[in-house]
Amino acid sequence: MNRYENMSSAELSAELALIRAELAKFSEMGLNLDLTRGKPGDEQLAISEDMLGVISSSEDCVSENGVDCRNYGILDGIPEAKRLFSQLLNIPEKNLIVEGNSSLNIMFDTVARAMLFGVYGGKKPWAMQGEIKFLCPSPGYDRHFAICEAMGIKMIPVDMTPDGPDMDTVERLVSSDPSIKGIWCVPKFSNPEGYTYSDETVERFARLKPCADDFRIFWDNAYAVHEIYEDKIPLLDIFETCKKYGTEDSVFFFASTSKISFPGSGLAIMAASENNLIQIRPILSAQTIGFDKINQMRHVKFFKNADGVLAHMKRHADIIRPRFEAVIGAFRSELTGIATWTEPRGGYFINLTVADGCAKRVFRLAADSGVTLTKAGASFPYGNDPRDRHLRIAPTFPSFDDLTKAVEILCLCVKAATLEKLIENN
Amino acid sequence: MNRYENMSSAELSAELALIRAELAKFSEMGLNLDLTRGKPGDEQLAISEDMLGVISSSEDCVSENGVDCRNYGILDGIPEAKRLFSQLLNIPEKNLIVEGNSSLNIMFDTVARAMLFGVYGGKKPWAMQGEIKFLCPSPGYDRHFAICEAMGIKMIPVDMTPDGPDMDTVERLVSSDPSIKGIWCVPKFSNPEGYTYSDETVERFARLKPCADDFRIFWDNAYAVHEIYEDKIPLLDIFETCKKYGTEDSVFFFASTSKISFPGSGLAIMAASENNLIQIRPILSAQTIGFDKINQMRHVKFFKNADGVLAHMKRHADIIRPRFEAVIGAFRSELTGIATWTEPRGGYFINLTVADGCAKRVFRLAADSGVTLTKAGASFPYGNDPRDRHLRIAPTFPSFDDLTKAVEILCLCVKAATLEKLIENN
Repeated sequence: MNRYENMSSAELSAELALIRAELAKFSEMGLNLDLTRGKPGDEQLAISEDMLGVISSSEDCVSENGVDCRNYGILDGIPEAKRLFSQLLNIPEKNLIVEGNSSLNIMFDTVARAMLFGVYGGKKPWAMQGEIKFLCPSPGYDRHFAICEAMGIKMIPVDMTPDGPDMDTVERLVSSDPSIKGIWCVPKFSNPEGYTYSDETVERFARLKPCADDFRIFWDNAYAVHEIYEDKIPLLDIFETCKKYGTEDSVFFFASTSKISFPGSGLAIMAASENNLIQIRPILSAQTIGFDKINQMRHVKFFKNADGVLAHMKRHADIIRPRFEAVIGAFRSELTGIATWTEPRGGYFINLTVADGCAKRVFRLAADSGVTLTKAGASFPYGNDPRDRHLRIAPTFPSFDDLTKAVEILCLCVKAATLEKLIENN
Repeated sequence: MNRYENMSSAELSAELALIRAELAKFSEMGLNLDLTRGKPGDEQLAISEDMLGVISSSEDCVSENGVDCRNYGILDGIPEAKRLFSQLLNIPEKNLIVEGNSSLNIMFDTVARAMLFGVYGGKKPWAMQGEIKFLCPSPGYDRHFAICEAMGIKMIPVDMTPDGPDMDTVERLVSSDPSIKGIWCVPKFSNPEGYTYSDETVERFARLKPCADDFRIFWDNAYAVHEIYEDKIPLLDIFETCKKYGTEDSVFFFASTSKISFPGSGLAIMAASENNLIQIRPILSAQTIGFDKINQMRHVKFFKNADGVLAHMKRHADIIRPRFEAVIGAFRSELTGIATWTEPRGGYFINLTVADGCAKRVFRLAADSGVTLTKAGASFPYGNDPRDRHLRIAPTFPSFDDLTKAVEILCLCVKAATLEKLIENN
């Protein structure tokens, strides 16, 4: 944050006046630009167009095991869908359940189930143990935190690093506090920073020795195959790694096709050890007879297999990559020495870190100029970014023109807020 | 049960020997017939064939409010789907949420939510109140009871009558025991008897004065439009009736298209008062971003409107009616004076009541002759039919030939079990 460091008060004020003048022009335009939505854009949805009509007759609905997907039956998912996810995620089919349209829903249900029924190896339901806590690597995914907040689970922020959560803190806390029951992880292309956990981080998760016998790692691999460049970003396999330490029971794994096929009309899966599934399946079978098997078949017929998914992801990448590059390019040219940002190789978000105490102000200035940003603080538990400096940028949804316009305005707002702060502190 | 009443012991034994000889012929055939499955048969699935391909391009996915059904958004369901259910069920759109593929799932979640968060007007989550109880009109739907059993909610059976649950008992219990938090109701074509609640029963539900401030009527209107004859069986509108007494908050309403379009790939809804929805929506929005809107659109495009659904139900009726008549015809000719049965005008089941202490034996004899029946006792809490006399017959799924063969065998088994019991008691 040194771009302005040698400037006098007068120079800072002059600079601020210039920036404000530029912003004023945009305010007058009555723009309505939106950088909040971590959802695929129209071009991305279009590449799955053929999935819509891939099933058109009853013959298309017969599973390889003879089951008619149009009728009741099969809690776990049809075998061809299980195989597709098994290949894609390197998880044995027997450890996988293909469910409905939302991994968030599965995660909520998994927490709710643990609250009411406990987990394998635990002695009591979580809800019967007084105050319980989750570790929340932050910045993180606001909807993870919203689940905890709804359930009344106390959230403890843990710093994120480019290698993943600060594992010294994680280890210290889980080994000393039995009321800590879980931790939220987005291990690859984390939301919002786009960081991928290092091998050492995954190893340390696998070696974790929680003092609670009912602690679980919520491994939300939402962006498992969401590279935007050719280079495949490696993530150590959590279940394989846990096997080395006999800790497979500590992990609940989640993924979905929300950002592969259609958000809201995709497939979501959970995976877990056999011990965990033995505890979960009877409860799940009280909850439902089964999930939408026709939509499972639709995905299998469209993607064919894991390679089909990976080829499809390259098409997404080609659409998304220029957008990330446009944002990062603008940040590099406009914000070097003023702010920092992540430069993810995949996922859906870029995290912009502005000067301490400036994020809310940037949000406000952007709103005044017609640009909606995700609320400052949203990526922290209880919406509380202690240093008020993080902003989550979602470049996929707006049109390319809107995106570049919005980022141009955003850069001005960051400059303005930074200058205001410097002047205030002088 | 008077067919055999004037027979001597010797005559009974001779009759039993004849029946056993007939059954032995079937045993040798190695049949594999199934009367358990309350699911639509192939002919029924075929009438929804055109729904499979009704959406084939992105243009088909745009809701009337401009929302792209392929992307995230809309917790409540798309407006055209809400309107369709609103017309069909006479419930204001604002009181309806169109969700995913399973009303059972919504019911489980509704109980789980009440356990963890309580309900509108209640002081504490159900799970924090020690032992709680549900009234279970019996015989009833085994999967309702399975939810209670999974949750550890104590079930109190209440007798069913042709007019609905024994309301004297219901009123007495809910007005005196604050630990009673709910009652399961299938108000129209009840599972398994096919009874429809009388106007007086619905009135008494609406007038109910539970001493628990967090008591709810779980109104599972699973067969709302599932007549099998031309005559529309009337059911008093529960919400309208409640309005007269200011008790709208006491009802959670559920329905689905599982037996209208495709089981497992249909739509399910819940409806509730505004007060209830104000409490529910924030929790639901922590649980999911939204349900499968493309499938909602698929249903709207196929059915068009409520009249479209009703016309479709007539086609189902034409397929189901002969099956009900075949079963009831066989019962009338074979079991008059030996057993009793219900003769529903809709729904999916027939309840067969055999002599006390004979249901399990009939189940066993049928199994030995190649006919699988729903387990005796399944329609009672904890699987416990105190008089061991109820059997649930599901006539929709087998082929017509298999159905008639299975019912022929079933009738022989009922006779055999009855004769055995008479001989034993002589």
